[in-house]
Amino acid sequence: MKTLEGIQVLDLTQAYSGPFCTCQLADLGAEVIKIEPAKWGDQTRSWLPKKNGVSVYYTFVNRNKKSVSLNLQSDEGRQIFLELAKNTDVIVENLRPGAVAKLGLDYETVRKVKPDIIYASISGFGQYGPERDRAAYAIIAEAMSGHMDHTGFPDGPPVKTGLSMADTFAGLFAFAGILLALYHREKTGEGQYIDVAMLDCLFSATESAIINHSVFGSNPTRMGNRELFGAPYDCYKAADGYYVLGVGTEKAWKNLCKVLGKPELIDDPRFSSMESRKANEEELTEIINHFGSTKTRAELEELMSAAGIPYAPVLSIAEVMASEHIKARNMIIEMDDPRTIGKYKIAGIPLRMSASEASIDTTAPLLGEHNVEVLSRIGLSEDDVKTLSEKGVL
Amino acid sequence: MKTLEGIQVLDLTQAYSGPFCTCQLADLGAEVIKIEPAKWGDQTRSWLPKKNGVSVYYTFVNRNKKSVSLNLQSDEGRQIFLELAKNTDVIVENLRPGAVAKLGLDYETVRKVKPDIIYASISGFGQYGPERDRAAYAIIAEAMSGHMDHTGFPDGPPVKTGLSMADTFAGLFAFAGILLALYHREKTGEGQYIDVAMLDCLFSATESAIINHSVFGSNPTRMGNRELFGAPYDCYKAADGYYVLGVGTEKAWKNLCKVLGKPELIDDPRFSSMESRKANEEELTEIINHFGSTKTRAELEELMSAAGIPYAPVLSIAEVMASEHIKARNMIIEMDDPRTIGKYKIAGIPLRMSASEASIDTTAPLLGEHNVEVLSRIGLSEDDVKTLSEKGVL
Repeated sequence: MKTLEGIQVLDLTQAYSGPFCTCQLADLGAEVIKIEPAKWGDQTRSWLPKKNGVSVYYTFVNRNKKSVSLNLQSDEGRQIFLELAKNTDVIVENLRPGAVAKLGLDYETVRKVKPDIIYASISGFGQYGPERDRAAYAIIAEAMSGHMDHTGFPDGPPVKTGLSMADTFAGLFAFAGILLALYHREKTGEGQYIDVAMLDCLFSATESAIINHSVFGSNPTRMGNRELFGAPYDCYKAADGYYVLGVGTEKAWKNLCKVLGKPELIDDPRFSSMESRKANEEELTEIINHFGSTKTRAELEELMSAAGIPYAPVLSIAEVMASEHIKARNMIIEMDDPRTIGKYKIAGIPLRMSASEASIDTTAPLLGEHNVEVLSRIGLSEDDVKTLSEKGVL
Repeated sequence: MKTLEGIQVLDLTQAYSGPFCTCQLADLGAEVIKIEPAKWGDQTRSWLPKKNGVSVYYTFVNRNKKSVSLNLQSDEGRQIFLELAKNTDVIVENLRPGAVAKLGLDYETVRKVKPDIIYASISGFGQYGPERDRAAYAIIAEAMSGHMDHTGFPDGPPVKTGLSMADTFAGLFAFAGILLALYHREKTGEGQYIDVAMLDCLFSATESAIINHSVFGSNPTRMGNRELFGAPYDCYKAADGYYVLGVGTEKAWKNLCKVLGKPELIDDPRFSSMESRKANEEELTEIINHFGSTKTRAELEELMSAAGIPYAPVLSIAEVMASEHIKARNMIIEMDDPRTIGKYKIAGIPLRMSASEASIDTTAPLLGEHNVEVLSRIGLSEDDVKTLSEKGVL
């Protein structure tokens, strides 16, 4: 059984954070109806790279959704949205704060036609606060959250996450908020409004940085791939790429000395405790790199695993996709849409739940593909849809 | 109203991923009873830095929870756990895969005494698959997910996130899974098992990397703070730190040229389109750094905001904590525990929900602080608790 079957979502989101949220809902069985600007659709439909004129970016994060094209700036478009809202459980939007109010489609307006609506807004800085209107690019939220200052090397510039943590984090918190609101509605009959900000989400996940600053006055910053607590715990160079070691116990350290062919290091005072290894980390790194830089990651994997030393190769996306483990976890889904980009692969669903099924069944929709199907529910005929399209409402 | 009030959670998690999940549940009103190893407690109780002998790491992520010390390797400890489970809604654990089965406390065992239990396991690689038993340090999951290869500069090594994205990501997916399971139980009466792996979660959030590889055969890797789509979108050096710009429109570009005092660049063919700016990004970066490196971030902020150019300073944690916006969003909570570390600050709650309250009310518990309170519910007296403590069961 899909737990969210029967739940209807009107999805006013674009780009990544919102669509990442609503694709989780869709994978769990909700009917996600993506309301896209009538002429252009979601802005990602124009993002490069494309195949056969279709954006691959749009394609991966909008699977399992339906598309209705709707000009919300027209009176008729707005009325259609409100008609649809009457039978909707959840609305999600990630327009600029204030934009849905300008359209006359904010929470207060919608709840007049659907009192128990669950209405989630995702934004960079939230619906209130002095920075509310600041541009919400992911790099801007990362820069202002403390994460970027903490990522990278001490002698180099701050580094953003390569694969936009700000968007996925906000999308996930919104996803959780919507699930909580559904549970709340099931118990009380009551809907509600949810305000999720990228900055709040990132700031709430800054680990011990805040408490450390408040208690010790310390202002920690980036330290590459190392950790304060000890060494070796870092990223090192192999002959064919990089790998990481996480030596957290004395046992693992002793085994590492044997693998390095230097059992004498076990009793060497420079390295005989976590503290001394941390103090002499540069020397230690040289020894490890001297050993490892002439070996492949596969050779190192064999040596390290046999000795029980926590090790991992740093894998490229192509290598991750070839991993037997990723395959065994069914984390790669093969799709095919002859109407658009043909065959392609996307990531599977990380929530493995014994009673709540999840699956990816349909490819991303064409713009307005479901206009007739969805709008017939509010009494519009195929002819009506045609007329509205000609008028630019759809 | 707190939506999760009345929900009891037995929390078998340690370190960061699991406690991050269960503190979300606690903030929303669940009673989270942390079951800690009788002698030592959660391993983070020993983590540095400490104040007054108490770990600040343990303190921030275990607020709002109760603590019961319990030796689960003893028969009596195990029986006590199963007695408690009879009145529990949710169990969360992040031991090594297989460990709860060895203890005789796995899902199949617990559901015999509590058929509708919701039981979530968080691990590095999941409960099945060839890598199941690999050490689950965050850096190892990041290395094997593709994220680390994508973060950092092209001419430097891969970079892990400074503030452990692997843990918070897995914690958040588990949080969402538990909320979905509560909703499912409310509708069907049925409990279930949830298997969440750091690697699956990270891999599912690799943006367009997977589809790009599958469609175009490309194997993209890290590119610092830049983006493929255009420029200037990067991190730059100011006199007193770093800042980021995200110039995504021609309008913002024209305004930037004026701010730089170089209106002639607007029509310069090297920079007159997004494509040409991207092609001449190095020159562009030099021009921006020449202008910005002698100005403070505050001066730049004023110039850029006045001109409507997406800008942000890269803030340290201390600077983020001083931000008026973070304060206005109530994202810093002041706590005080005279028994342990005294006054301290932690991050607030990012989920802003109009009908589901959330709050942080109690500081982190002492080890076994709630033994008497919790164990009295299964009929144990204060004397029983004392005897069990002396025997090492508590």
